Amino acid sequence: MPSDPLDAGLLSPATVGHDSLVSDRAYLDALVRAECALVTAYADRGIAPREVAVAVDHAFGLDEKYGSPSLGIDLDALATASVAGGNPVIPLVGELKARVPAECRPWIHRGATSQDILDTAAMIVARAAVAQVIASLTHTGQWLRTLAETHADTVAAARTLTQHAVPTTVGARASAWERGIRRSLARLDALVFPAQLGGAAGTLASFVEITGSVDAAAALPAAYAEAAGLDAPDAPWHVTRWPVTELGDALAQAIDAVGRFAADVATLSRTEIAEVSEGTGGGSSAMPQKQNPAEAVLIRSAALRAPQLAATLHLASALAVDERPDGAWHAEWPTLRELLRLALGASWHASSLAAHLRVDTDAVAHNLALTGGRIVSERLRGVLVPLIGADRFAALVGGDGDLAEALRALPETRDLDIDALLDPAGYVGLAPRLARTEDPR
Amino acid sequence: MPSDPLDAGLLSPATVGHDSLVSDRAYLDALVRAECALVTAYADRGIAPREVAVAVDHAFGLDEKYGSPSLGIDLDALATASVAGGNPVIPLVGELKARVPAECRPWIHRGATSQDILDTAAMIVARAAVAQVIASLTHTGQWLRTLAETHADTVAAARTLTQHAVPTTVGARASAWERGIRRSLARLDALVFPAQLGGAAGTLASFVEITGSVDAAAALPAAYAEAAGLDAPDAPWHVTRWPVTELGDALAQAIDAVGRFAADVATLSRTEIAEVSEGTGGGSSAMPQKQNPAEAVLIRSAALRAPQLAATLHLASALAVDERPDGAWHAEWPTLRELLRLALGASWHASSLAAHLRVDTDAVAHNLALTGGRIVSERLRGVLVPLIGADRFAALVGGDGDLAEALRALPETRDLDIDALLDPAGYVGLAPRLARTEDPR
Amino acid sequence: MPSDPLDAGLLSPATVGHDSLVSDRAYLDALVRAECALVTAYADRGIAPREVAVAVDHAFGLDEKYGSPSLGIDLDALATASVAGGNPVIPLVGELKARVPAECRPWIHRGATSQDILDTAAMIVARAAVAQVIASLTHTGQWLRTLAETHADTVAAARTLTQHAVPTTVGARASAWERGIRRSLARLDALVFPAQLGGAAGTLASFVEITGSVDAAAALPAAYAEAAGLDAPDAPWHVTRWPVTELGDALAQAIDAVGRFAADVATLSRTEIAEVSEGTGGGSSAMPQKQNPAEAVLIRSAALRAPQLAATLHLASALAVDERPDGAWHAEWPTLRELLRLALGASWHASSLAAHLRVDTDAVAHNLALTGGRIVSERLRGVLVPLIGADRFAALVGGDGDLAEALRALPETRDLDIDALLDPAGYVGLAPRLARTEDPR
Amino acid sequence: MPSDPLDAGLLSPATVGHDSLVSDRAYLDALVRAECALVTAYADRGIAPREVAVAVDHAFGLDEKYGSPSLGIDLDALATASVAGGNPVIPLVGELKARVPAECRPWIHRGATSQDILDTAAMIVARAAVAQVIASLTHTGQWLRTLAETHADTVAAARTLTQHAVPTTVGARASAWERGIRRSLARLDALVFPAQLGGAAGTLASFVEITGSVDAAAALPAAYAEAAGLDAPDAPWHVTRWPVTELGDALAQAIDAVGRFAADVATLSRTEIAEVSEGTGGGSSAMPQKQNPAEAVLIRSAALRAPQLAATLHLASALAVDERPDGAWHAEWPTLRELLRLALGASWHASSLAAHLRVDTDAVAHNLALTGGRIVSERLRGVLVPLIGADRFAALVGGDGDLAEALRALPETRDLDIDALLDPAGYVGLAPRLARTEDPR
Repeated sequence: MPSDPLDAGLLSPATVGHDSLVSDRAYLDALVRAECALVTAYADRGIAPREVAVAVDHAFGLDEKYGSPSLGIDLDALATASVAGGNPVIPLVGELKARVPAECRPWIHRGATSQDILDTAAMIVARAAVAQVIASLTHTGQWLRTLAETHADTVAAARTLTQHAVPTTVGARASAWERGIRRSLARLDALVFPAQLGGAAGTLASFVEITGSVDAAAALPAAYAEAAGLDAPDAPWHVTRWPVTELGDALAQAIDAVGRFAADVATLSRTEIAEVSEGTGGGSSAMPQKQNPAEAVLIRSAALRAPQLAATLHLASALAVDERPDGAWHAEWPTLRELLRLALGASWHASSLAAHLRVDTDAVAHNLALTGGRIVSERLRGVLVPLIGADRFAALVGGDGDLAEALRALPETRDLDIDALLDPAGYVGLAPRLARTEDPR
Repeated sequence: MPSDPLDAGLLSPATVGHDSLVSDRAYLDALVRAECALVTAYADRGIAPREVAVAVDHAFGLDEKYGSPSLGIDLDALATASVAGGNPVIPLVGELKARVPAECRPWIHRGATSQDILDTAAMIVARAAVAQVIASLTHTGQWLRTLAETHADTVAAARTLTQHAVPTTVGARASAWERGIRRSLARLDALVFPAQLGGAAGTLASFVEITGSVDAAAALPAAYAEAAGLDAPDAPWHVTRWPVTELGDALAQAIDAVGRFAADVATLSRTEIAEVSEGTGGGSSAMPQKQNPAEAVLIRSAALRAPQLAATLHLASALAVDERPDGAWHAEWPTLRELLRLALGASWHASSLAAHLRVDTDAVAHNLALTGGRIVSERLRGVLVPLIGADRFAALVGGDGDLAEALRALPETRDLDIDALLDPAGYVGLAPRLARTEDPR
Repeated sequence: MPSDPLDAGLLSPATVGHDSLVSDRAYLDALVRAECALVTAYADRGIAPREVAVAVDHAFGLDEKYGSPSLGIDLDALATASVAGGNPVIPLVGELKARVPAECRPWIHRGATSQDILDTAAMIVARAAVAQVIASLTHTGQWLRTLAETHADTVAAARTLTQHAVPTTVGARASAWERGIRRSLARLDALVFPAQLGGAAGTLASFVEITGSVDAAAALPAAYAEAAGLDAPDAPWHVTRWPVTELGDALAQAIDAVGRFAADVATLSRTEIAEVSEGTGGGSSAMPQKQNPAEAVLIRSAALRAPQLAATLHLASALAVDERPDGAWHAEWPTLRELLRLALGASWHASSLAAHLRVDTDAVAHNLALTGGRIVSERLRGVLVPLIGADRFAALVGGDGDLAEALRALPETRDLDIDALLDPAGYVGLAPRLARTEDPR
Repeated sequence: MPSDPLDAGLLSPATVGHDSLVSDRAYLDALVRAECALVTAYADRGIAPREVAVAVDHAFGLDEKYGSPSLGIDLDALATASVAGGNPVIPLVGELKARVPAECRPWIHRGATSQDILDTAAMIVARAAVAQVIASLTHTGQWLRTLAETHADTVAAARTLTQHAVPTTVGARASAWERGIRRSLARLDALVFPAQLGGAAGTLASFVEITGSVDAAAALPAAYAEAAGLDAPDAPWHVTRWPVTELGDALAQAIDAVGRFAADVATLSRTEIAEVSEGTGGGSSAMPQKQNPAEAVLIRSAALRAPQLAATLHLASALAVDERPDGAWHAEWPTLRELLRLALGASWHASSLAAHLRVDTDAVAHNLALTGGRIVSERLRGVLVPLIGADRFAALVGGDGDLAEALRALPETRDLDIDALLDPAGYVGLAPRLARTEDPR
């Protein structure tokens, strides 16, 4: 009987349904793929017989278009067996050898160290997960661009330090969300996913023995990377961990970008503000009046966790001592997975949130009018201070009374168009342009 | 077919086999227990019929000594259903009602909010997990105390900033490990695990309606806590999250303590130092000469991750806005579980490490002699500088030559017992006393 | 000419004016005090002549009631001189010897290692700073208690996940703030501030030499602690760093508690909500209508930073290898100081914020009424679902119409007092009691 | 009398002497430069008279080649005055106006918000500091490249999980350090340092008023950026904080890279290993035999702190709500500065460390021989297991005896050249090639 899994998502509604690409099974599949890629690389370089690579691929179904290459390997048993040696590759090699024809066995894991396989598998998993994150963020950006253009001229209160400041437009705000997401996409697009192949300590000595020459060994990592669908490494990165931290940083940046979008949605959804609402979910059976910003909340929960996970990856990188560190490497594995998982869940919910977000333009207009025109006081200041002085201006705007009436009552303002002056739509600056164009320069 | 679990431990050898107390199933069991405890509390306070509470307990097997109260509830389906509302309690309530007699249904979850149940369940899980951590740390401490006493007088090189400094004893070092663990035990022992019962926004208004009076409602949380095996809360802590951060801090402190032990073991296991070795595991099939400090490595991997998890709990606490925050609460769940998991795994491996640690007294003595007596140069300085001056002393000790011979050749030292002076055992200070007693004052 | 200081507070408005207790000068003073305390301890234990201790104290003005003991020591020069050896104690010892009579010089720093002095100084600084934090938090708590009692019955909307949920009272909310602060006070009150005295590697070997016996050496730390105004250590804690992490955790908890208060104040200050306003500051010259929650913002900025600083202290603790670690100890110094600084600033602003916080009861009432009675829908559900069924109830409450009118129009409700049913004041549960008493059980 | 500065470097030996580019005075200078750049931009775009810009620059010495533009502005007073409004720009504007001719005053800070100035100043400071970090890292890389080439063939023990694994070369190890640093240089080189100019809420409304048209306002930020020596922003980034997090991530990566170098140096400096030593400093007066790896220790202290600082920047980015957030922005300032400071200090010490690092080839050879040839057991396994079977091989290599002798005694090995087989130099794989070339593919 399999033991219960530690984590099937019960405590992680932010990611449930969107994280299968980074599950333990996905990692196990990738470990198998990495081992098979090594055999393929040997064949591609003419070291191993082609038949061996074909037979190995066949044994794990890699000659089929679909299916899990680790099918039949007991995940729980493997995890349990991984404790003694401290990593799952050690017991996995035995499992794999038992599943291939005898003549293939010597080629399984040949020359490799467990870190070669684990790092390569992590990159296989990460590349696929990042592709999915990119897709979700791209959708999010597209929805937000539409939103920005639709509401490019919908005048709204801009808020700084929680207070109404000056007018902006709903579209300008959406455009700022979109720019953050677009930037994070650029970072994700630029990521490198190198295979790892260095042997016991990154010297490839075993591969020199096996291939018979330094040149042949030097050519192996690129062949291996190609077989694994990864980028060719410039050198082993056993203890040069930028591929992991750059990935972590880009994921954190992506989660920041959707987190910020969610922060605004949560705020603008407040009962008293109510300028936006989520199009789906978030109901409460006991309190049917509530429309919780459920997706925004889930995204925010991810955004509060991701930075500290990325920090752990940096620590592991900085503490990567010797030719394989005594703990720092192991600290990376679950941390990177959780970060990928959060990015998958948060970006998916962001795309759903963006797709279904409803703007209540009445509420937007209502809030804009809340301060009785004082939202353009920055503009008023420029106009009025020369006429009435700073003190009278401050008293006028700082008070609670009807500002338009008070302005009209002033002898100094008889030549001003008070209605135009107080119209927030007249003081939106570049907001519509910022809303309409990706690069408004 | 159940989907593959996200995490069955494949990437977490530090915790595999020691974390079932904090698995999703354990949380689900605790959620059921929390719901049942509420019915029991109603019965205990005379609000609900006793028969209802008995029937509910029976429906979930809580009248039996063992078994999982959530047996038959599909974890994956529940996790999936939790996304819309953002937490698993909402769909769970329906599942539970379907499993109890019709007359019991109105009492399930009556008056409660999902946070009441989730927070209470988290405390149920945490209390059991912390008890296990305490047991492991207690064993670790006992083994280290034995080690400290056994080697109270085994003179060894103390190292500061990586360099031999002065002598100490193996027992003094073990005693320092033990003191850190003992202190963390005091913190864990002092933890409070309060139940949570506040209703929708911590006012217990629903419970006033149900029980018919403010006093009756006020008495309910203590009854609920007792039924759940937890401490009575002084007030609802929906957004006053010290029970979570104090737990997180104590767990981090415990992991620090075993992490430090592991850091020393990893260092002292180095091929060139070799003063200690792990009694178990850590072999390498390819390199049979290696005796990897595998448990120390796993513990260290946990110690590098725990502080950032504890930080996330503090952030969630500091950002606990309103009467239920918009993301901070959700960020706590997986974070606290991972921290409990790391503490379970790290403390278990620490107890195993302490139980099986081997000290190679020959290597200890060999290393102690490496600097040719210079390890007592602090003492020599006190004796020799008055005789030969600081400059000559520095030249003498800073050089590479045979120090004993050089000392004997000096006219100024003719009255000194050079052998005694250079004997590290004569300069161990309080090390043996520190090793032998828990409080050496 | 002294170089410009790195940090005079320009980037730290959250702490400016409240952090002199943890300035570099304060640390330098504490370093001098720690060195003097060692001489005093020698005198107290009869090892050094009393005259020496008196002369040393006199040389640094410690026989006066006030004044900086490090007066005349050039901070910049000392900092510069500290780089080569990696800590400021090494050059400081020379400075101190130059300022005391020749016969005192041998007693300065005698037997000590720089870590003894630095750790002890850190505890001297921390103890004073924590006392100040405790004072600020105590004031904060008192103001919040008054606020809670004043507004124990001021009914207000409770919000969960940003949405109006059920009624609470302003006082109940203030009381929750206060409970978090009170709890953090208990943690701060329980802190231990041990002196550090272990010699080069924590064995006190040098002190055995100097005092002539193991017993005399063992008695020295307590005497030293007393002279330094600190707690006696049970053993050297060079690499057993719980005194630092427990301090860090308690400071983080205190900052969490005021951070949460500030989070609510910032939210409740929003232009659209406006239930509270800060009594001081926060104006904008360009936008005089703004009343920024300036102190809440500053407190929040501290609360977002503190958890990661506390995490660094845990990392340093977990990585404390050997008898003095190769980097982890040094990482503690600026981190702990910054955490103390944030606690000083945040707690001071919290006390100011609490003292001057204004509640706008009209706005509170206005917001409470925003949902037209739907804020008591949890209660309505209990009453109405039995009468009209769940579907009609959901339609009724989920709509936008006049709820009271709709209810009165129902034949099933003719016997109900609709006004009373919809009155939020009738559904506040234990909120008034929670507001009025520290422990409402 | 100026108050004592909070931080003059006493607790920060890792950065003392290398951080003046990021001091409060440097920030204050940059604030002044940012304000002056705005006036210049107005002049460049034909909005303000050229004479005004010239006069303003002259007033702050910006027409001179050197000198501090903030000369005469009291840093302490300004910091104190910044508390009420929560940032230093508010009081600074008054200071600046007082120092320029009356006709210039209206142009000071015209249309800007304090965030425009502070963010721009932060980028001015960061650009200069990053240039210095790049210079230090470039030097570090050059020294390491020389080291790698010098010792490309110096065979050494590679260590994994603290244990001797297989041979490598000193040069290959140095080359790995260098590759990490080179990669971080690429990240730093690619950074963007955009000016910030958006007005009160990022709409540039005030600039439309001032310049008279949307197009003229839209052109202003690029002119401003040019005057400030920064990159033109694509849009205001008040709450789109990737310029800050990308900077933070790149700094963390740089510190990781030098941290890893330092981690290896600290380990290889251990008394028992002693393969490298720092060329400078690190002495201990009390223990003259010690050669502390002082620079490595300082670098490591920075590396343990940086990741958590970078995490705070991500949090601030993810929590950037509204058009200016209520705390997250303020949390960035001291955090970014500290990260810049650590990068400056750590990279400087890394270059010094690399320049002066001494390799003790005798110690390298001694350690390599420690396992009596077992360091090539991976190779032996390939050769011997076919001859003697896995069990006998494991017994042979796992034992303590003389391996060469034992091998020669075996009948199965009579045809083998045992000396060649056991020679570590014959099993270094690609290590020499990795050492000699930047990209060894």
